[in-house]
Amino acid sequence: LKEEIVKYEGLIAPVYTPFNNDPTRSLNLEILPSYAQYLIDNGITGILINGTAGEGTVMTVEERKLVAEVWAQLCSQGQLHLMVHVGGVPLPDVLELAQHAEHIGANSILCLPELFHKPATCDDLIRYLQLVSQAAPNTPLFYYHIPSYSGVNLHMGEFLNKVQGSIPTLSGIKFTSTVLDEGYAALKACNERFTVFLGSDTVMAGAYALGFESAIATTLNMLPQFGQQIVQCIKDGNIKEAQEKQNDLNSALEIIAKHGAWVPSTKMAMNLLSPIDVGPTREPIKTLTAEEAKQMENELTSLSFITS
Amino acid sequence: LKEEIVKYEGLIAPVYTPFNNDPTRSLNLEILPSYAQYLIDNGITGILINGTAGEGTVMTVEERKLVAEVWAQLCSQGQLHLMVHVGGVPLPDVLELAQHAEHIGANSILCLPELFHKPATCDDLIRYLQLVSQAAPNTPLFYYHIPSYSGVNLHMGEFLNKVQGSIPTLSGIKFTSTVLDEGYAALKACNERFTVFLGSDTVMAGAYALGFESAIATTLNMLPQFGQQIVQCIKDGNIKEAQEKQNDLNSALEIIAKHGAWVPSTKMAMNLLSPIDVGPTREPIKTLTAEEAKQMENELTSLSFITS
Amino acid sequence: LKEEIVKYEGLIAPVYTPFNNDPTRSLNLEILPSYAQYLIDNGITGILINGTAGEGTVMTVEERKLVAEVWAQLCSQGQLHLMVHVGGVPLPDVLELAQHAEHIGANSILCLPELFHKPATCDDLIRYLQLVSQAAPNTPLFYYHIPSYSGVNLHMGEFLNKVQGSIPTLSGIKFTSTVLDEGYAALKACNERFTVFLGSDTVMAGAYALGFESAIATTLNMLPQFGQQIVQCIKDGNIKEAQEKQNDLNSALEIIAKHGAWVPSTKMAMNLLSPIDVGPTREPIKTLTAEEAKQMENELTSLSFITS
Amino acid sequence: LKEEIVKYEGLIAPVYTPFNNDPTRSLNLEILPSYAQYLIDNGITGILINGTAGEGTVMTVEERKLVAEVWAQLCSQGQLHLMVHVGGVPLPDVLELAQHAEHIGANSILCLPELFHKPATCDDLIRYLQLVSQAAPNTPLFYYHIPSYSGVNLHMGEFLNKVQGSIPTLSGIKFTSTVLDEGYAALKACNERFTVFLGSDTVMAGAYALGFESAIATTLNMLPQFGQQIVQCIKDGNIKEAQEKQNDLNSALEIIAKHGAWVPSTKMAMNLLSPIDVGPTREPIKTLTAEEAKQMENELTSLSFITS
Repeated sequence: LKEEIVKYEGLIAPVYTPFNNDPTRSLNLEILPSYAQYLIDNGITGILINGTAGEGTVMTVEERKLVAEVWAQLCSQGQLHLMVHVGGVPLPDVLELAQHAEHIGANSILCLPELFHKPATCDDLIRYLQLVSQAAPNTPLFYYHIPSYSGVNLHMGEFLNKVQGSIPTLSGIKFTSTVLDEGYAALKACNERFTVFLGSDTVMAGAYALGFESAIATTLNMLPQFGQQIVQCIKDGNIKEAQEKQNDLNSALEIIAKHGAWVPSTKMAMNLLSPIDVGPTREPIKTLTAEEAKQMENELTSLSFITS
Repeated sequence: LKEEIVKYEGLIAPVYTPFNNDPTRSLNLEILPSYAQYLIDNGITGILINGTAGEGTVMTVEERKLVAEVWAQLCSQGQLHLMVHVGGVPLPDVLELAQHAEHIGANSILCLPELFHKPATCDDLIRYLQLVSQAAPNTPLFYYHIPSYSGVNLHMGEFLNKVQGSIPTLSGIKFTSTVLDEGYAALKACNERFTVFLGSDTVMAGAYALGFESAIATTLNMLPQFGQQIVQCIKDGNIKEAQEKQNDLNSALEIIAKHGAWVPSTKMAMNLLSPIDVGPTREPIKTLTAEEAKQMENELTSLSFITS
Repeated sequence: LKEEIVKYEGLIAPVYTPFNNDPTRSLNLEILPSYAQYLIDNGITGILINGTAGEGTVMTVEERKLVAEVWAQLCSQGQLHLMVHVGGVPLPDVLELAQHAEHIGANSILCLPELFHKPATCDDLIRYLQLVSQAAPNTPLFYYHIPSYSGVNLHMGEFLNKVQGSIPTLSGIKFTSTVLDEGYAALKACNERFTVFLGSDTVMAGAYALGFESAIATTLNMLPQFGQQIVQCIKDGNIKEAQEKQNDLNSALEIIAKHGAWVPSTKMAMNLLSPIDVGPTREPIKTLTAEEAKQMENELTSLSFITS
Repeated sequence: LKEEIVKYEGLIAPVYTPFNNDPTRSLNLEILPSYAQYLIDNGITGILINGTAGEGTVMTVEERKLVAEVWAQLCSQGQLHLMVHVGGVPLPDVLELAQHAEHIGANSILCLPELFHKPATCDDLIRYLQLVSQAAPNTPLFYYHIPSYSGVNLHMGEFLNKVQGSIPTLSGIKFTSTVLDEGYAALKACNERFTVFLGSDTVMAGAYALGFESAIATTLNMLPQFGQQIVQCIKDGNIKEAQEKQNDLNSALEIIAKHGAWVPSTKMAMNLLSPIDVGPTREPIKTLTAEEAKQMENELTSLSFITS
């Protein structure tokens, strides 16, 4: 377990899984090399795969492994930290995916809680993560807190204080929530032992001002400069500029998100704003209609996020 | 699509998946024939497999198929209606399980909603179930409403009124809730077109008095006479006796359920109260300790649910 | 404390507070004698005043006292049990209203929980009700469980088991919920020591089949025969007829409730279906528009609930 | 309506209502002059009275008026902005309190939503606030968003965008929540027309980094320097120092809040940390025991928040 990983400081892009526009939304792995190069060219130093944006929970185990293997190859030169999401499926599959992630050399693992027999207490969650940890005993593990999707809303400050060292590989959490007092409590838990990745783009300036030092933010895909600039401005004490960049980012997101649910609307924005075509979403995630996409494009153009 | 299935009237036992007491909780399929015979001997005429009690969402696709195939064989003589739960996993797996269920001759299919990209509206849920329906176009489909586990709580009266005929095979729902005005609305929706299985043991007398005609109730496994008697008493207008039987059943459940979560505590009760040994639960569902089991046994004995 | 009150068996009508159709919705107390006579003529033997239907929480303390005094006069001959709701306002006012209710000879008192500094535990609620009990030490007290309005959702089975005898006058609860397993647990708590009034019209047949013996139901105002018939049918074991009456009642309520929130739509129905004109609701409870009222009238006429 | 009030920039202390330690917790108004002087001496320029910390919802209308009159006198020289909370009681009383607040020269009014017949939509809330606005047509009005107490959780960005100019005196909201993306949306609504007071102490640094310019924070009572310093540090771009001050403040609050609910624990802290003795809380708000108070004192001393 590499100690320097335990406190990760930096920004990670949660990448989309590219699908072909065919009936089964088959994997389009051929574009991954250019996707990787695009991120590197834009200053990104880490990726999360098969997460929420990556539609991991609507893919089969075999598909998730395949995607992970291609990305592992692309990250093998160390330019991108590779975090693999292994959760959201039956526990035997989670364990298999965790083992596989370690086998292919993932730098870290992210894991949702059980989605049906949900943990009722922190102890339930700890027991679950201990099993995941045992399946990949040499890879840092992060817990994925995203209550609006998972329906699991244990308090992250209490959880991390309770964990202490009981899950050998647990290195922190992805905190996908805008409830920043809870995020703050997670940051401070156990003498700041754990890394807490902010998972919400719209409050980055606020979270970093409170002490966050890392984030996994969707817009690092299609508007990668904003998140990086916000972080730098806060570090430099340029509050006004941080606010302006945050405001620009949030204005773009307001346009994007009003056209559909988070994943399909931001995936469409990726196609509109970046040179990478990640294709449609897979059922049951409803892809935007052509009309909705056109409208989003027009509005992004009028705000100069798209330039002709 | 057999029309007589569309309005199912009767009781279905949601069977446990037997596991061996080994580290991986491997499948113990050898006891299924005696399990089937036990249910038939006790008047049960239908089963649900791989559901909540059946721990379907902590099994792999292959395991679920295997269990389904064995039960299909055991039900092939028509003494037991075979309902197969296919949901709670990534959609490609759900579709494969639905197709498989139809292939092996399941009498009906039950399906949870997507657990991570949850349906926000009835329309989202309808689109999802249409895909499941297409994968098994000749088998009656039931939607599994169990908000305390799934986190999806669309109003079932509104949902069924909205469905009308838009999901060709949809024949009704399993209503695992004690919110009986909503259950009533589901019963009456679309001119009583749909079957609404009550999924809660503790309010059977009340639900049947309101007009329910079918139920999928956990205690039909280990205390099969109670549910059947309650139903008969209500039909016969013996309210006092129905109340007494319901009271006995609820007293047993109060003892059982206080020792753990619903699935592990009732699975333990199955082992204590019936001749069938279904073994422990699988992680992350926490099996009761030996001490908890002993305490449950003592209390059930003192109330004469177990006789020496 | 009269022991026979402690277990109340029967039906109570939660009466409306009549307002004039003027800007301040001033009290229209003159119609109360005919309202009382109308209820008596229709077989009603008890009333609840200043409750939810009675708009108690949008009236001043003085107005609530005035209304209580008039009703106390009208109930003084013993034909109607008088239950006075005293809660939903600052605690000093609650205590004053409780004292006043006892002073004017109310047969029982009903009380909401504190609505802002909500009880977080059963112990918090017990401490609150002890204060109310001390203010009216000779009058049976009922706790008002109505989570959809109060936002307080403590489990009523646990609460009553915990109370035991710690609140001297506590005689039970009004259970305004359709979660019937919880209602059942309340019925059985403390060896059935407490009266549990069902507070939901739409599941009466089911609740009585489970053992409920008392109810406070809005429709006893404008459709008083239905609730009484449902109760009698269940007692007589006439399940089919109980279901038919329940179905008729629910059909009427479906029409009524779709035109607005519960209080204003049922208050309008009172004006349409009974000879008593209780007038409009008071702000912030939005009275139905004339058009909505007309539409409701037409639909009730077409279903023969209103005959010309 | 004074325009300069509409965009309030600064910090407001939500003052406690001092009670005597007698059975009825009678008002102890005699200490208010020294309370006012203490706040002024500590740099505070505005107060909120009869709010949550001020226990307004457990006082009678007469008591609230009396408290308001004394404070109005103390604020009459313009050193303290006087905001009067008028909500959380029956609407007739709210309107009387609003009228009274304007009459005594309050600088602004704060108002909770109706707590029992809760607004279901933004339109419901707008209608309610229009009535309050009419009762005090010359005084800026703020809506009190505090979902954890009120149970009303309308999205404040949507609400303010919908309001536009439909409530003549509405000048903004008190946003007592740590969900900072929603707070951000409120800030930006209607071209930043409205003042959004942050109502949460623990995320001040983050909120101000995102653009908040005003706050009503409990700890301005007993630790007034912290909030002021955090605000100044963010303005000056001293992020590290802002974080240190926020961390100190949150450490104190962690000690304070673990001994009871928010109001009684912070009221006790006021007694321990300031020279002003605001006494106990009033029922049903449970005052800390002497032992809990002693423990809090010891821990605050060990962290040097109390110096001997």
